Amino acid sequence: MSNAETTATFMAMKGSGYYSKATAGARDTINQATHLVLEAIARLTLADGQAPLRVADFGAADGGTSVDMWRSALMDLRRRAPRRPIEICYTDLPRNDFAQLFRMIHGQTEIDSYYKQIDNLYVFASGTSFHDAIFPPRTLHLGFSATASHYLSRTPRTISNHVHMVGASGAERDAYIDQGRIDWEAMLSARSRELCEGARLCLFNFGIDEAGRYLGSTGGVSMFDTFNELWRGLADDGIITPEEYVNTNFPQCYRTIDQFVAPLTGSSSPVYRAGLRLEHIETRVVRCPYARDFEQHGDAKKFAQSYVPTLRSWSEPTFSAGLAPSRVPAERQEIIDEFYSRYERLVAAHPRGHAMDYVHVYMTCAMLA
Amino acid sequence: MSNAETTATFMAMKGSGYYSKATAGARDTINQATHLVLEAIARLTLADGQAPLRVADFGAADGGTSVDMWRSALMDLRRRAPRRPIEICYTDLPRNDFAQLFRMIHGQTEIDSYYKQIDNLYVFASGTSFHDAIFPPRTLHLGFSATASHYLSRTPRTISNHVHMVGASGAERDAYIDQGRIDWEAMLSARSRELCEGARLCLFNFGIDEAGRYLGSTGGVSMFDTFNELWRGLADDGIITPEEYVNTNFPQCYRTIDQFVAPLTGSSSPVYRAGLRLEHIETRVVRCPYARDFEQHGDAKKFAQSYVPTLRSWSEPTFSAGLAPSRVPAERQEIIDEFYSRYERLVAAHPRGHAMDYVHVYMTCAMLA
Repeated sequence: MSNAETTATFMAMKGSGYYSKATAGARDTINQATHLVLEAIARLTLADGQAPLRVADFGAADGGTSVDMWRSALMDLRRRAPRRPIEICYTDLPRNDFAQLFRMIHGQTEIDSYYKQIDNLYVFASGTSFHDAIFPPRTLHLGFSATASHYLSRTPRTISNHVHMVGASGAERDAYIDQGRIDWEAMLSARSRELCEGARLCLFNFGIDEAGRYLGSTGGVSMFDTFNELWRGLADDGIITPEEYVNTNFPQCYRTIDQFVAPLTGSSSPVYRAGLRLEHIETRVVRCPYARDFEQHGDAKKFAQSYVPTLRSWSEPTFSAGLAPSRVPAERQEIIDEFYSRYERLVAAHPRGHAMDYVHVYMTCAMLA
Repeated sequence: MSNAETTATFMAMKGSGYYSKATAGARDTINQATHLVLEAIARLTLADGQAPLRVADFGAADGGTSVDMWRSALMDLRRRAPRRPIEICYTDLPRNDFAQLFRMIHGQTEIDSYYKQIDNLYVFASGTSFHDAIFPPRTLHLGFSATASHYLSRTPRTISNHVHMVGASGAERDAYIDQGRIDWEAMLSARSRELCEGARLCLFNFGIDEAGRYLGSTGGVSMFDTFNELWRGLADDGIITPEEYVNTNFPQCYRTIDQFVAPLTGSSSPVYRAGLRLEHIETRVVRCPYARDFEQHGDAKKFAQSYVPTLRSWSEPTFSAGLAPSRVPAERQEIIDEFYSRYERLVAAHPRGHAMDYVHVYMTCAMLA
């Protein structure tokens, strides 16, 4: 089981909208860029008629973070093409909590669904990786993906001095960049086969911006450096082994703007040759909602108690996967609890500068008409 | 939460292909009638080309019971239209274990998937009830549904003297027959809107055959009567209350051939007017695999220990749902365990005549071309 699958399993286990609730910031990063999707829709050539329109949300998890964006986008599509059936498909890895997704869509959760607000709408899911073909050729009118492409299809190697590629160097860093390039090209290549002529693809991903900033590293205390220091501290204290420290690596690549854009430029790129073009790109920093609250209330303990669980919600599978398979569940739980407890104590004692600010690269691509 | 949803939740909890493994007989009822699907495919008008073909499995659970049938059917479709993309969509209620379904399709379970054997194939799921519209109008080329339509969208009322409508009479039986008619018409009506001209719909359902036989009631000991007698025995012994006995009703309707056929005949039927026609109907009894094994080995205890868990796999949610909500989980578990333990002891002591023989009504319908 890959680390990416471990994450999916973890999320499936937590279930019941855990992912969405713990990721209010991820929803904010989508909602604040909804206009980019609406502008992409405005540029679509959409004749009214009977032929279905197909849209997709790639790597959608339980659909909670994008539901408000899709409500706006689907209403816009409905206005543009009043009589056309609309098919929306949510994709993720097989172990994703698709039942939670469908329960959300059909109004069986606390989340407000758009399903009954838009007529002639049909909702589907796919469990096929977005590195592969998901739809038949030329059947997709609008693609969207947020905060999913940083997960690699495989962990290329261990990192000796850090838990994340942002802290790696030399051949170790290159291995992650290379896998990141392969996966990004595969994702864009699969989409360029599926998109109709003139279709649009909106991609909102974690990345490294012009100023070198990335998730949790925007000038204050670096979140991934803190993860690394605390995890190494467990090794120094004999709580985990040196092998476990080295084996703990986020299966992620944060790409620079140049790396995001590369497959979309230059006639030697298969994606470019297939007709996919970059239409718009920008970077945005969305301030960590917990750090923003702390600026108001100033209560370091309260900040630590709300901030660290959010970090835990998405990072725990990586740290758990780094532990030796021989460790029994109770032992694993104890180590993981100690790890996040140290993080919480650190933030409570020295709150200044801690923040999981989101750094996203927002891209819109167009298929040649 | 409806009883049908309780079932889905139960199956989701058991997970990991539990449904399919416990329902070898359900798979047999499909596999033995695969030729009906292949004959329906042979009658389709299929030009080759680029336009996707769409097929669907309605009420598919985890997809395990129909996987062999679909392998044959999809290979046939691929031969008939070598270049056309094929989309297959599995539908069930939102709480269904869709993750298990996708893991099966993508070869992550012990079940042999067809996914890599058929090129240009795209797999999807829908969590929309098959009593509602699932696909845009005129986009479905082949529909299939097995052993799902006996579940009602709601339990119409309690039954005073039995746990299943097959043992009910008068107004109590009529209420189930009426809800069964409403749901069957809704299902066929939704499909008649979705099917393309000349498309086929294969429906293999539990029913009551020409000789009055139905699931577990084919001349020997009646399974539903045994359920009823043992459950009433718990009430007689004060283990459950009289209210709990009355509140325990399978949310199911077993239909007669006339009831299955009614919406497909007569110009006053909306389904008939929409162009859906009955092309073929037959009934079949598939012998209970556990009773057949018992005929060979003659070991009553072994028979009881393999037979009763199969019954439990699909009936437990109904008995559990009949218990008062105030009962705590441990108490519920104790009652349910006692119930099936009594069934097992009964079969071990008097094995003759016990058998969950499957009685299916197999129909093929065609949309007017």
